[in-house]
Amino acid sequence: MKKIKTYEIRHEIGIKATSKLVYQALTDIKMLSNWWTSDTRGTSKVGNFLEFWFVDFCQKFEVIELKQNQFVHWKCADKGLEDWEETEIRFSLRSDEKQCFVNFIHSGWQDNTGLYPHCSTKWAVFLLSLKEFLETGRGRPFPHDLAVNHN
Amino acid sequence: MKKIKTYEIRHEIGIKATSKLVYQALTDIKMLSNWWTSDTRGTSKVGNFLEFWFVDFCQKFEVIELKQNQFVHWKCADKGLEDWEETEIRFSLRSDEKQCFVNFIHSGWQDNTGLYPHCSTKWAVFLLSLKEFLETGRGRPFPHDLAVNHN
Repeated sequence: MKKIKTYEIRHEIGIKATSKLVYQALTDIKMLSNWWTSDTRGTSKVGNFLEFWFVDFCQKFEVIELKQNQFVHWKCADKGLEDWEETEIRFSLRSDEKQCFVNFIHSGWQDNTGLYPHCSTKWAVFLLSLKEFLETGRGRPFPHDLAVNHN
Repeated sequence: MKKIKTYEIRHEIGIKATSKLVYQALTDIKMLSNWWTSDTRGTSKVGNFLEFWFVDFCQKFEVIELKQNQFVHWKCADKGLEDWEETEIRFSLRSDEKQCFVNFIHSGWQDNTGLYPHCSTKWAVFLLSLKEFLETGRGRPFPHDLAVNHN
């Protein structure tokens, strides 16, 4: 079936850190576990898989492309949310004299209702957790993440 | 000139408050000033204007539609960011036994690069400020808002 239109979630944050450190926080398993979910598994190499566990639920990604200190690209793999099937995540880094900007894109959504608005807000929360982790040494990964509702 | 495609920012939060209270926080000037910007002026009546001041910068909206305890719709007026020209903001409320959900749409963007990703993140921050204000009595309106970069 041909896809007529897809939707993207986009965010941007500026982190007082080098692009090298930000890149590490997007590729090193131990550092990833400090801002998205505490239970992160796998190896960040192109063609390999990353698993982000939320108790007994796993969101799995294939690592599609890596450009050191510049770009990280994942694609959703078999496990995970139905709404996230075929979606992709890209982090693009660029630095100025004050900070490293992280430009975030979660693309390939078939719909921008349903889970989309919730995930849009939640991605902001996790990107702010990434910022906090790199600037203060302490992020807010799941299960310590900021709640955006009372579900 | 015909617009080919426009983009939307979407978010959703769940607030432990009645839809009546959430609606007030979106329509009462004093309550609005507790979560977006401390300097909010105008009157929330259909056809009237709201002004959100950030020191000497003003973002102005016309109130397009109001449905008590359900829906608020604004349209950008003459002043403000160029990227926000012709854009519109809609808040839709729905409650379940635990909370009032606020579904937020900022539509009519001509582009989803430029300011869009920054504003997407920043809207999440202000919606979380709205949630905090209604749940704890204290929001984080500008100039006390959470910074998402170091500009």
